[in-house]
Amino acid sequence: MPSYTAPVQDIQFVLHDVLRAHEQDVPGYDEMDRDFTTAVLEEAGKISSEVLAPLNPVGDREGCTLENGVVRTPTGFKAAYDQMREGGWLALDSDPEYGGQGMPYLLGSAVGEMFVSANMAFNMYQGLSHGAASAIHAHGSEQQKRTYLPKMIEGSWSGTMNLTEPQCGTDLGLIRTKAEPQDDGTYRISGQKIWISAGEHDLTDNIVHLVLAKIPGGPDGTKGISLFIVPKFMVNEDGSLGDRNQVVCGGLEEKMGIHGNATCVMHYDGAIGYLVGEEHKGMRAMFTMMNEARIGVGLQGYAQGEVAYQNALAFAKDRLQGRDVTGVQNPDGPADPIIVHPDVRRNLLHQKSFTEGARALAFWGASLIDRSHRSGDAEAEALVSLLTPVIKGFLTDKGFETAVLAQQTLGGSGFTREWGLEQFVRDARITMIYEGTNGIQSLDLVGRKLGQNGGKTVMAFFEMVKSFIKEHEGDETLKAGYLDPLKAASKDLQAAGMYFMQNGAKNPNAALSGSYDFMHLFGHAALGLMWSRMAVAATKMLADGEGDPEFLKAKIETGRYYMARQLPATKMHLARIESGADPVMTLDEAAF
Amino acid sequence: MPSYTAPVQDIQFVLHDVLRAHEQDVPGYDEMDRDFTTAVLEEAGKISSEVLAPLNPVGDREGCTLENGVVRTPTGFKAAYDQMREGGWLALDSDPEYGGQGMPYLLGSAVGEMFVSANMAFNMYQGLSHGAASAIHAHGSEQQKRTYLPKMIEGSWSGTMNLTEPQCGTDLGLIRTKAEPQDDGTYRISGQKIWISAGEHDLTDNIVHLVLAKIPGGPDGTKGISLFIVPKFMVNEDGSLGDRNQVVCGGLEEKMGIHGNATCVMHYDGAIGYLVGEEHKGMRAMFTMMNEARIGVGLQGYAQGEVAYQNALAFAKDRLQGRDVTGVQNPDGPADPIIVHPDVRRNLLHQKSFTEGARALAFWGASLIDRSHRSGDAEAEALVSLLTPVIKGFLTDKGFETAVLAQQTLGGSGFTREWGLEQFVRDARITMIYEGTNGIQSLDLVGRKLGQNGGKTVMAFFEMVKSFIKEHEGDETLKAGYLDPLKAASKDLQAAGMYFMQNGAKNPNAALSGSYDFMHLFGHAALGLMWSRMAVAATKMLADGEGDPEFLKAKIETGRYYMARQLPATKMHLARIESGADPVMTLDEAAF
Repeated sequence: MPSYTAPVQDIQFVLHDVLRAHEQDVPGYDEMDRDFTTAVLEEAGKISSEVLAPLNPVGDREGCTLENGVVRTPTGFKAAYDQMREGGWLALDSDPEYGGQGMPYLLGSAVGEMFVSANMAFNMYQGLSHGAASAIHAHGSEQQKRTYLPKMIEGSWSGTMNLTEPQCGTDLGLIRTKAEPQDDGTYRISGQKIWISAGEHDLTDNIVHLVLAKIPGGPDGTKGISLFIVPKFMVNEDGSLGDRNQVVCGGLEEKMGIHGNATCVMHYDGAIGYLVGEEHKGMRAMFTMMNEARIGVGLQGYAQGEVAYQNALAFAKDRLQGRDVTGVQNPDGPADPIIVHPDVRRNLLHQKSFTEGARALAFWGASLIDRSHRSGDAEAEALVSLLTPVIKGFLTDKGFETAVLAQQTLGGSGFTREWGLEQFVRDARITMIYEGTNGIQSLDLVGRKLGQNGGKTVMAFFEMVKSFIKEHEGDETLKAGYLDPLKAASKDLQAAGMYFMQNGAKNPNAALSGSYDFMHLFGHAALGLMWSRMAVAATKMLADGEGDPEFLKAKIETGRYYMARQLPATKMHLARIESGADPVMTLDEAAF
Repeated sequence: MPSYTAPVQDIQFVLHDVLRAHEQDVPGYDEMDRDFTTAVLEEAGKISSEVLAPLNPVGDREGCTLENGVVRTPTGFKAAYDQMREGGWLALDSDPEYGGQGMPYLLGSAVGEMFVSANMAFNMYQGLSHGAASAIHAHGSEQQKRTYLPKMIEGSWSGTMNLTEPQCGTDLGLIRTKAEPQDDGTYRISGQKIWISAGEHDLTDNIVHLVLAKIPGGPDGTKGISLFIVPKFMVNEDGSLGDRNQVVCGGLEEKMGIHGNATCVMHYDGAIGYLVGEEHKGMRAMFTMMNEARIGVGLQGYAQGEVAYQNALAFAKDRLQGRDVTGVQNPDGPADPIIVHPDVRRNLLHQKSFTEGARALAFWGASLIDRSHRSGDAEAEALVSLLTPVIKGFLTDKGFETAVLAQQTLGGSGFTREWGLEQFVRDARITMIYEGTNGIQSLDLVGRKLGQNGGKTVMAFFEMVKSFIKEHEGDETLKAGYLDPLKAASKDLQAAGMYFMQNGAKNPNAALSGSYDFMHLFGHAALGLMWSRMAVAATKMLADGEGDPEFLKAKIETGRYYMARQLPATKMHLARIESGADPVMTLDEAAF
């Protein structure tokens, strides 16, 4: 059975030594000193290793069951959920006004990484509920907030997001679910929603569905979509639960992974719904939560890579097979541990250098969200908006790739259920698809985010990279191992952006044909920046005699691998982009 | 449910228009005219689509069951197996002296691609049996051949390969299974073998196990390994079946995919075994079949990509979502089919350009095997020996990637069981692992094959590319779209080889740290060559007014995508290789 150990030292390094969170001028960050975060992270790590991780294969094997409209989660999920709830883990970064602990989203993300590594399917129950609560918090009326948020934040109720229908996933303009206005100000919701994660389950007393639907007579397409609260059980004035609403789970999806999470077909049959915000403004309400939700999925991607890597590493140190070509390393054993072999090390370093870089990028994104929400910093909001599709798309593509590489480290054992690696691969796979497929992320990046604020935000990113390089290139070692490759990657990214500018106006397909490669190019450049920031921090600490020197030297070496062996991908992506639309667009549809 | 249509026109194009098989001076090839192969391929395509493909999800869902030592295959497998046997499909390219039809391995591969695309788990039963029969054919005594081959080739008996044990996979020198010599010339085999595909099942009357074991007192390591025939049921002098031998299936492995194939733990408890070939020469016997087996796995890799692509394409033409940014394409529908979107086309072309290139490479490899076996051509043997790790490693890595991309085309539907794409991903995953992990393939390529014949073989490959380019570069269109990128890729490959030569002697890790990237670099260069050969053939046919012009133009366009969008990967692989051993080898084991 696989195991999980929370990488507390790595997380602390990013929080305190790289992002220097406790020194940042963001309300609430002053409380995040090293002792406090150590206590929180170690406690979260403990529950992750001891409670959540052992349930991960259980959830995979048992899956969820539906009988007479009742969904049962796998053995142990309810007890673990209650333990999480009672420990206050579900309310960590929620608004204290509604019972939350008010911690920064950054710390919530750090803890979230652990929960996801330990048991992604389980963590989705609380993760989606958190998203639904955020939507109500941002767009609900005062009464709606008072009615739903305390229970949702505390965890005795959960929430869902209902967007997809059989005929529409990406293209929400095609939604058919109807919301008929009633005289009492409520609406009657009718329609079918599919792929609703945690749409029905036995973990909470009530489920608060957020549903996108169309009010008859409204505008066509996405401009006519409204957002509704549809509780599973009606809520009485005193907060107690009333009648069952007309919403039922009609089926569970059989799927490749995340078996422990119930993916439901939901039937709304004249269910009572309450409008959230204004009529026809539902898409806007969804979009304001999108950054947070998508960064959360990016985190899921690398978090699956992280736990897969941990188990691959343990195997590589333990498995004896073959001898080091440069000399026997384990003379008392029948063979050397496979970690001596260069190709096994290459594989492990590919995994390790990705997940550690990805963590830094995801946490940077989370800190920008705090800066935007807590300090009202518009530049931070613009920057995180630009980075969001990169964090979602790149970190999930590479997180899945990392899980596949980790599985490969185990050879045949990686293909068996027993070792658990194959579950990480299957679970990680969904992160490339949901919350907008990675293709959609790349369209969002190239079609929307690149041009936002007249291109000022992306220029600010380039400027940030440039001044960072300038500030540190006096250090010859940093320059050769980090800053020169970073400069080259950033140059490739700028060249790609230039190609889109010069060709996209007269032929949008010239830009759109390169969007996916651009997302990856950006991802590599961003991880190159994060690794350079980590190397600068580690170098300085070593010079100042601070921190754990072995840990810091390992960081510098791991980053060197990333810069030397992963960053060269930028040239490939640029070449693909610069080949333009022709290779992609010329073939007739009939000739495929 | 997914479907499969045999790509007969594509296969014929490679066989006849690119490889020009019927014109090749190889015994048996003269019979392979276009009418004959059309008849065979269409018939094989029919059974693939109608019989094997519908059983693929059945096998995945039901898996195999073990009860009291008896393994039951999924519903319908036995009937399909009998149909295949009676149709003569199992004996296609086997020796007529033992009941085979004596067709070339090339044609066997073409038919095999279809069977694998339709149902990989099912096809493994006959595929492994074919390999075992080949081993007996190459190394068995006349009596062994007469006893086992007719039944195995006809398909009423099957065969297995027993290599792996719990403590040894790659490193077969660690084998513990013992073979005690008996006075009657037989051996008593005792030990445990794991991951034995088709080790026990209900499809055939007898199972002929080929087992690697050590005769006590023999040399240590791989030099002391011998190969034995261990039949499940003893065979009487008259060919009838006698007593059960002391070999039983002790368990079935639960695994990520290929559920329809029984992966067995085999217990040998003093089972009677017959030596194949000489004592202690078992490894040699295994190795002589390796090329064929590994090319077969490479074929599995792209064949899974092919069927996944077919289903992704059908979805992309059918699914309506969003509008073409350059103008509405489907005004009568609520949205355009997603194939209009550049990023969906990019994804589909990535899949298509890989599988079609891969087919050409695999068939070229198969034709070299025929040339080596049937004509005794030593150069062909050396060349296919060089290409084998590339075909196995590159085509399976990219075949899996292709299945993942195809799954992505379907968005959320790709993650559900219902659409079947996720099965192709899970099934394809094993091809990167078995018959030697792809890491091992890369070691074989760089550590063994590159230097074979003093490097003459790889030089001959470069020379072949060079003279091909020279021969055709008068055509400006071919030059720009194909030959220039091919030249660049070949140059990158040579530069990588040069790097290994200059650095590998004083530090083997400098070469071994780059072996995996070299395998991919070689794969891209080889597919670049195959696409160029296909483009040359299609261009000539168009000029000569031969063939189906729409088909030929689509080939040229698809290849252009490969050259423009996939070949640029060679620069990335070269950069990684040239970064040398340091980034891979410096980090201490304890610091991982």
